[in-house]
Amino acid sequence: MTGVSEVADLTSVERAIAALTSELGADAVSAGEQDVREYRDPYDYKGSDRYTASAVVTPRTVEQVQAVVRIANELRVPLWTFGQGRNNAYGGSAPRVKGSILVSLRECNRVLEVNDDLAYALIEPGVSFFDLYDHLQAGGHRLWPSIPDLGWGSVIGNTLEYGRGYTNHGEHPAMACGLEVVLANGEIVRTGMGALSAGKVWNSYPWSFGPSHAGLFFQSNFGIVTKMGVWLMRRPDVFLSGWAKFEDDDTIVAFTDAVRELMLDGTIRNLPLLGYGLGIGEEITFGEEGWALRFALYGREAIVDAQYEIVRETLAAIPGVEVGRRVFTWEQRPDVQGHNDKVHAGVPGMELMDAFLIPYGPDTGHLDLSLVGPMDGADLAASIGVLRELYGATEFPYLAGVLFLGRSVLHISSLFFDTKDERQTRAAYDTYAHLVGEMARRGYPVYRTNIQHMDLVADTLDWNDHAQRRLNELLKDALDPNGILSPGKQGIWPRSMRA
Amino acid sequence: MTGVSEVADLTSVERAIAALTSELGADAVSAGEQDVREYRDPYDYKGSDRYTASAVVTPRTVEQVQAVVRIANELRVPLWTFGQGRNNAYGGSAPRVKGSILVSLRECNRVLEVNDDLAYALIEPGVSFFDLYDHLQAGGHRLWPSIPDLGWGSVIGNTLEYGRGYTNHGEHPAMACGLEVVLANGEIVRTGMGALSAGKVWNSYPWSFGPSHAGLFFQSNFGIVTKMGVWLMRRPDVFLSGWAKFEDDDTIVAFTDAVRELMLDGTIRNLPLLGYGLGIGEEITFGEEGWALRFALYGREAIVDAQYEIVRETLAAIPGVEVGRRVFTWEQRPDVQGHNDKVHAGVPGMELMDAFLIPYGPDTGHLDLSLVGPMDGADLAASIGVLRELYGATEFPYLAGVLFLGRSVLHISSLFFDTKDERQTRAAYDTYAHLVGEMARRGYPVYRTNIQHMDLVADTLDWNDHAQRRLNELLKDALDPNGILSPGKQGIWPRSMRA
Repeated sequence: MTGVSEVADLTSVERAIAALTSELGADAVSAGEQDVREYRDPYDYKGSDRYTASAVVTPRTVEQVQAVVRIANELRVPLWTFGQGRNNAYGGSAPRVKGSILVSLRECNRVLEVNDDLAYALIEPGVSFFDLYDHLQAGGHRLWPSIPDLGWGSVIGNTLEYGRGYTNHGEHPAMACGLEVVLANGEIVRTGMGALSAGKVWNSYPWSFGPSHAGLFFQSNFGIVTKMGVWLMRRPDVFLSGWAKFEDDDTIVAFTDAVRELMLDGTIRNLPLLGYGLGIGEEITFGEEGWALRFALYGREAIVDAQYEIVRETLAAIPGVEVGRRVFTWEQRPDVQGHNDKVHAGVPGMELMDAFLIPYGPDTGHLDLSLVGPMDGADLAASIGVLRELYGATEFPYLAGVLFLGRSVLHISSLFFDTKDERQTRAAYDTYAHLVGEMARRGYPVYRTNIQHMDLVADTLDWNDHAQRRLNELLKDALDPNGILSPGKQGIWPRSMRA
Repeated sequence: MTGVSEVADLTSVERAIAALTSELGADAVSAGEQDVREYRDPYDYKGSDRYTASAVVTPRTVEQVQAVVRIANELRVPLWTFGQGRNNAYGGSAPRVKGSILVSLRECNRVLEVNDDLAYALIEPGVSFFDLYDHLQAGGHRLWPSIPDLGWGSVIGNTLEYGRGYTNHGEHPAMACGLEVVLANGEIVRTGMGALSAGKVWNSYPWSFGPSHAGLFFQSNFGIVTKMGVWLMRRPDVFLSGWAKFEDDDTIVAFTDAVRELMLDGTIRNLPLLGYGLGIGEEITFGEEGWALRFALYGREAIVDAQYEIVRETLAAIPGVEVGRRVFTWEQRPDVQGHNDKVHAGVPGMELMDAFLIPYGPDTGHLDLSLVGPMDGADLAASIGVLRELYGATEFPYLAGVLFLGRSVLHISSLFFDTKDERQTRAAYDTYAHLVGEMARRGYPVYRTNIQHMDLVADTLDWNDHAQRRLNELLKDALDPNGILSPGKQGIWPRSMRA
């Protein structure tokens, strides 16, 4: 589906850089080799320049975003947009099409509103999880963000990539309420009830009068999101950071089904993570034997106590399972230590980055094979068995975490490699590609992938001869006829670049 | 935005009826005056034929839906699709454009799958809430549906109109997981992970790889939904049907804020309904003085007890508020009586229909002014005050229910009238139109409206000079260039019918 022109036309790009500089000012545009170098895929082979941009433009206002889009349309230059550009393991800030102009929204970084009563914030794409956390703390708000493993990423960027966190608000895409989007035609649209000028519910009511458009702008190249409402969690009286451990793979069947029932009946409302060899103490440790689940409970003390008692009784009744907890009041939150408790408390950090770099030092790369499966114990155990076998035939060990979503799971296994080692890096990417095909054939799609594998994953989505891709292409051609917005993202190519 | 051609071309319609009869068989097409009469808006003035269809076609398979769409495209004939056609107070099954051919999906009425473990069903559009309930009961499934006030409607139709129920799964649009859609170009698409042929998670994981399209097909004329996954509630150990009563409007401020906090912290997880003069006993009664909230709790007995204690303490601490409950085990559910307990138990019924007909007998009509506002006590009290005053200047009393969604509310007031009385009927529609404008100006949009008021409501959604409408028109023209699918729905008109 690709290949017609996977490299941007350099003459047009030069003209675009001049026009952008003239329009936004010289300090908003950088095109030096070193400047663009830092935006390459951090986990690609260090010697590769396949995914290098030609420039980076940093608009500071929505009007400047519109200007960027206008210039790109005039000169038919591909853009590639990011909030913070921390989408590591999926390409970081690097563009799919070499020579694209990066649109960095890092300077659009205001928290525009915090509504304490209705428990939401309205933010711009440059706001990181650290920024949002700091803003809420500084303002004395009774609100907690949900955060992913690393705090440096853009809240909007993470959400639009279907990222997750670990509190009761961990299903990030479902916590977005109200987008503002710059379309390729330069129009600014607000989704949902943002369509009413005088309206009071853009960020508290998630649906439209008529079709709801927000989903169109997730993992998408149909528009540039410039504002988002994000629902926040009311600060709980107490929170409980819990865990359950077991050794045998066989236990997964009953254990997974039991946790699912606890989620379906509302006893557990966060997104629990099951990992192998992750440890679950205050400090994350690698290499520990056996499986461990971490989960969290929030709210009034009496209810948290009753919920924990049910979780404990239910899970400890499964042979070989050990259950534990740490309980905190909200006042104790600033003292929370260790990755597991911090993510449960919505406190952003970078401690997992150190863990990511253990295998090969600062140049360690990794790919995440992020599969979706049903939250069914027997099915999960079988898919773990299949992956152990598939990984066993490669040079990479099976290292996995399973995020429980209630009715489905994200079964994420990571391949670590040395990005200075071309052979090993290539082997990781090839192994990943092989695993995607093997698992798709067995019914497990990937929810998010690296720029290098976007076409591959899109190819697996074959129902009715790839009808969903044709729908995406129809929408792409209508919304972005010149194909300027992130061409190739998620395997969606504009007409001019389709084979 | 309308008016170019609000009546279908009758020659084309005649040819389409012939083609449909030839393709689907005579028993799938009816065009007699009496046949189409029953599909008119039940609450329009009885002497009016403004919204009369020219025929009704009843496909039984997705292939037949494709054939209908093909014929409509060939002959440029407008269609208007419904599942059961029970969207009363919003037009019933009647088309926006007179002379449209109705596409009744009542015969596409299979429950295709029930997944007991993952708690979902895959259904067709003709499946009513009664059908789904009966199917779950007959199969001995440990699953409860969430139901709206009347059980005869289509589950898919209700969900796509952003309908609500009253259990923990009452936010129906958020419980849809996986759509199958016939597009105007005849293609069948499955949303989300339905794109993977071998996939296991179409109805358990709600997002796509790439953009998520489901929202496009809500309250929409962009496609015909032929299948939907719907998430169901795990049968709880016990359920509690609770209420709280108070007399004074002034109490609304503290009461609403207190209920919001109980919802934000997860103590109350259903959608509670606050009504004036509705009564809250086992039988619904009209004309009782004062405000009453009904709410429900579900789950393990210990947790339900602890939650109720917190609700009671919190709400009874507000002066003038009285709190009560009825508790049932799941085994007692078949014995539940009365509308309030039935909707909390997910048991469909028709008892509210009798209440709807009290004012003027069997020809009583009503309109629902379905406003969205923030879930803020002071704001709600103020908006009730404004509406009382606005209604006070009309011949219609202010009769309202407020559905609490957690961060927003649906503030629904109903105008009752005698559909045999042309003057009164017209007065109701005119009053409604006036109120829409008054409330939009104050920041309250409408989430759902009658076919007669769709253009009016769309006109209120004015942000950035109606940018959302232009996005809808762009999508409409791309997805349905001949404008055959439900033209005018929600104020979205195809190019050929735009002024």
